[in-house]
Amino acid sequence: MVSEQKSADVSFESLLRIFTVPEGPDSTLTQIEAKLSQNLNEFLREHIVAEEKPLKEIEKSFSNPAIPEEPQFVSDHTEHLLDTLVAHSVHTSSPSFIGHMTSALPYFLMPLSKIMIALNQNLVKVETSKAFTPLERQVLGMLHRLIYNDSESFYSQWMHSAQHSLGAFCSGGTVANITALWVARNNVLRADGDFNGVEKEGLFKAMLHYGYKGLAVLVSERGHYSLKKAADVLGIGQEGLISVKTDADNRLCPKDLKTKIAELKEQSIKPIAVVGVAGTTETGNIDPLEEMAAICQAEHCHFHVDAAWGGATLMSNHYRHLLRGIEHADSVTIDAHKQLYIPMGAGMVLFKKPDVMNSIEHHAQYILRKGSKDLGSRTLEGSRSGMAMLVYAAMHIISRPGYELLINQGIDKAKQFAELISKQPDFELVSEPELCLLTYRYIPEAVKCALEKANSADKAELNNLVNELTKFIQKKQRETGKSFVSRTRLNPNQWDRMAVIVFRVVLANPLTSFDILESVIEEQRDIASQAPKLLGRIMDLTNQIIHS
Amino acid sequence: MVSEQKSADVSFESLLRIFTVPEGPDSTLTQIEAKLSQNLNEFLREHIVAEEKPLKEIEKSFSNPAIPEEPQFVSDHTEHLLDTLVAHSVHTSSPSFIGHMTSALPYFLMPLSKIMIALNQNLVKVETSKAFTPLERQVLGMLHRLIYNDSESFYSQWMHSAQHSLGAFCSGGTVANITALWVARNNVLRADGDFNGVEKEGLFKAMLHYGYKGLAVLVSERGHYSLKKAADVLGIGQEGLISVKTDADNRLCPKDLKTKIAELKEQSIKPIAVVGVAGTTETGNIDPLEEMAAICQAEHCHFHVDAAWGGATLMSNHYRHLLRGIEHADSVTIDAHKQLYIPMGAGMVLFKKPDVMNSIEHHAQYILRKGSKDLGSRTLEGSRSGMAMLVYAAMHIISRPGYELLINQGIDKAKQFAELISKQPDFELVSEPELCLLTYRYIPEAVKCALEKANSADKAELNNLVNELTKFIQKKQRETGKSFVSRTRLNPNQWDRMAVIVFRVVLANPLTSFDILESVIEEQRDIASQAPKLLGRIMDLTNQIIHS
Repeated sequence: MVSEQKSADVSFESLLRIFTVPEGPDSTLTQIEAKLSQNLNEFLREHIVAEEKPLKEIEKSFSNPAIPEEPQFVSDHTEHLLDTLVAHSVHTSSPSFIGHMTSALPYFLMPLSKIMIALNQNLVKVETSKAFTPLERQVLGMLHRLIYNDSESFYSQWMHSAQHSLGAFCSGGTVANITALWVARNNVLRADGDFNGVEKEGLFKAMLHYGYKGLAVLVSERGHYSLKKAADVLGIGQEGLISVKTDADNRLCPKDLKTKIAELKEQSIKPIAVVGVAGTTETGNIDPLEEMAAICQAEHCHFHVDAAWGGATLMSNHYRHLLRGIEHADSVTIDAHKQLYIPMGAGMVLFKKPDVMNSIEHHAQYILRKGSKDLGSRTLEGSRSGMAMLVYAAMHIISRPGYELLINQGIDKAKQFAELISKQPDFELVSEPELCLLTYRYIPEAVKCALEKANSADKAELNNLVNELTKFIQKKQRETGKSFVSRTRLNPNQWDRMAVIVFRVVLANPLTSFDILESVIEEQRDIASQAPKLLGRIMDLTNQIIHS
Repeated sequence: MVSEQKSADVSFESLLRIFTVPEGPDSTLTQIEAKLSQNLNEFLREHIVAEEKPLKEIEKSFSNPAIPEEPQFVSDHTEHLLDTLVAHSVHTSSPSFIGHMTSALPYFLMPLSKIMIALNQNLVKVETSKAFTPLERQVLGMLHRLIYNDSESFYSQWMHSAQHSLGAFCSGGTVANITALWVARNNVLRADGDFNGVEKEGLFKAMLHYGYKGLAVLVSERGHYSLKKAADVLGIGQEGLISVKTDADNRLCPKDLKTKIAELKEQSIKPIAVVGVAGTTETGNIDPLEEMAAICQAEHCHFHVDAAWGGATLMSNHYRHLLRGIEHADSVTIDAHKQLYIPMGAGMVLFKKPDVMNSIEHHAQYILRKGSKDLGSRTLEGSRSGMAMLVYAAMHIISRPGYELLINQGIDKAKQFAELISKQPDFELVSEPELCLLTYRYIPEAVKCALEKANSADKAELNNLVNELTKFIQKKQRETGKSFVSRTRLNPNQWDRMAVIVFRVVLANPLTSFDILESVIEEQRDIASQAPKLLGRIMDLTNQIIHS
């Protein structure tokens, strides 16, 4: 069971060893860890097989539902993990993998993570976390200040107050969004007269008491799918998630927001929250937060901003104006594992007012006693790890100006890439970058002309073929393993809101050079030429349209 | 910014270095990591200050809400973390810290965790996790088989099916319990005729459609507080969480369960689930799962078992009979970060039937497309880390018989400790260990006699004083830092259901020796003598009662 032994056995002594004897300096696991520490990128390049193995094939290595009856040596199992798991994982830190919202991690976070894991604190209560609790409260305070910039006395009064929380640290943006809407729902349906509040009496009685026929959350068509999940979980129903129209730049139309709210009122449907998006997942655009905040204020409606991805832009003095109005939000979601370069599992939701989370407060006898500073009394999750430590360390080691550089380089690079794409006769920029995200597709010039000229039936047919080509290129590029962009489906105004499949690129990795971007385009053009049949059909239809 | 530099600066070059240049072998961070790898217990013993610093004092180190404008050297910041954070964290792996549900971690998990963090996969979709997705499905399959022991063909048919899930991996037991009740709620209030289901139309319309006046979840008085949170989030309301009576051994009374269900029916309140507890948090007892399953079957009600802590007992062929009936549960919660010795953040919920989770299925355009094997389409959380890798590795390296030894030693040790306590004239065992958890208190023999003899007013007064003493001992012991037990409040039958504060001990750490247990008792007796005033009041009242 321990690598130094000659054969794996199951005895109490061998078990004690796995708790007391670390892997020796020559053990396979230690050596792998050392290699990974010396050069992560090289390690992954060496160990991840470039060409993608079909999922069906990979599944064969993970098909046994029986828990092994024989222990395995650590070294043997480590080899097994390298071959079956690491070899077929995603090289997330590669500078040519520009399709994800996560990118490279700063080196110092790897050893720090190990320390965090070894300490194994549980943030649900002070008793199992001690200094980690004030640390997490400080991290929440830092993010709160980044958004709301309240006074010194505000933070000294509330940051460590047992009866208050400036927000909640959680596993990710989805839980953060659910938490924000949970708080908003409970505040709308709060105790009133002889009604004890939705948290006690439930949603049905709350609706009867307040006389509402339904509840609603309003968000632009580009809102994140997690809001649909939140509407389901919270009993609002997905139909209560009202889509507000967007303009040509994928930003919510305030006029339509007002219309939708008025329509809901007429039907006695109560809007519990309006959600502004600060960095849509698909196009990276930011809603007009200031106008939305004003509308919410007039309507006395909770204003939540989903800045899971784009919130880190506040670190940049140069670009933070793009999120103007976020300081009026009642709550804001930010994921540190996106543009704050923290490992997976670091979401946060911040609340403007320190007492607003009291609507979801919970207590128990053996934990979260009243008056305790246990963070668990106002979180959706229970037991949680000390991830906040990594955010804290990165804030100190990188510092605000360091983050500003990272944010700025991403946005500037996206602008450069957009320019590069615009210069290619056979590519089309579909959405301009507002932050470091843009979408585009491969479409030969003649095809573009034909698509503009075609009647609606031909237009749809030709566009469908181009969509197929985009899908083919994206899949093939991913499978080849040299570079990776993601894809999504948009309804751009310039194509009369036809469904257009696009490549989606996120330029957060500071190691992604302009050369790499040029080669990504080159590779896509090359892959397109590897689909002669599909390309032939596209060109035939194009010629037909042009000569008709 | 990087430790090799002479001074920290903020330039794009220095930023690139934190992504490309690892900490050198002589850097402070590398050295700390090495020390921790060589001997975690010693490292923590050396670095965690024994005597507890008041939280108010610790907070001073974490009081600045400003994100630093100056970068810090990695080495300087690491020193700072050692002094302010590690020094005042909890020594969770100490063999004399026997009050938490988490204990020591096997050594091999530390380097493996670092590899997991460095890979930074996102389990929400195959595209960002590849082999991690089938691996997680296999881990869920292993736990499913451990509970339900279905046939080989069952697992080969469903484990990797895109349209099915055997369960969900999540951050912890709370999310697991919420997920189970979410599924149960959505299945009870499913689409029917022209009603599109609660997930689409929301809870209010669902109740009107089905004609229910309320919803309920039934659980014993000893149910975990997370269920109250779940009832709130899901719109059921905390008043819909119905407490069922327990017997002298803290196990749910089936008779009272039947009565409660009948009462609910009379009021047109629909029970969406009955929850059995397999290892109550406070006393470690297991509900009569077989009888509860039969009742649920007769009532066509979802039967959920919260085995967050006790579920690992299924690894022991010797003790798994204690959970008999769990195989009839529709869903089961198990936390791998409790008795499976995995670091914080590894919860799971398993479902007996592979299609039951479809009631919470979600899709989007750019992710979780229909037919994909993306795990995110049936989880409450969105982005998630690759924690399942650690469960997978531990299953292989420790193996089922290894886990059996760990479970058995814990239960056997708890029985020995119970015997030791029973032999002390000045201690009282309050709850017998069924698994490796027990509760007791310090109470001199004369006080016990007086308490038995006293009239009800004196009884209450004396008991309150003893409660104060128990609190004092527990707090003082924790603050002294040599050993740690937790505390809770019970209403034991032997004391006519008076509120009795008790020490709570969980004996999962294989390094906890009998000598340590003896010294914990010794220390408690010694601390009691340090409260002469309180002890004096207790003895005065005792004498008064005895001589009255």
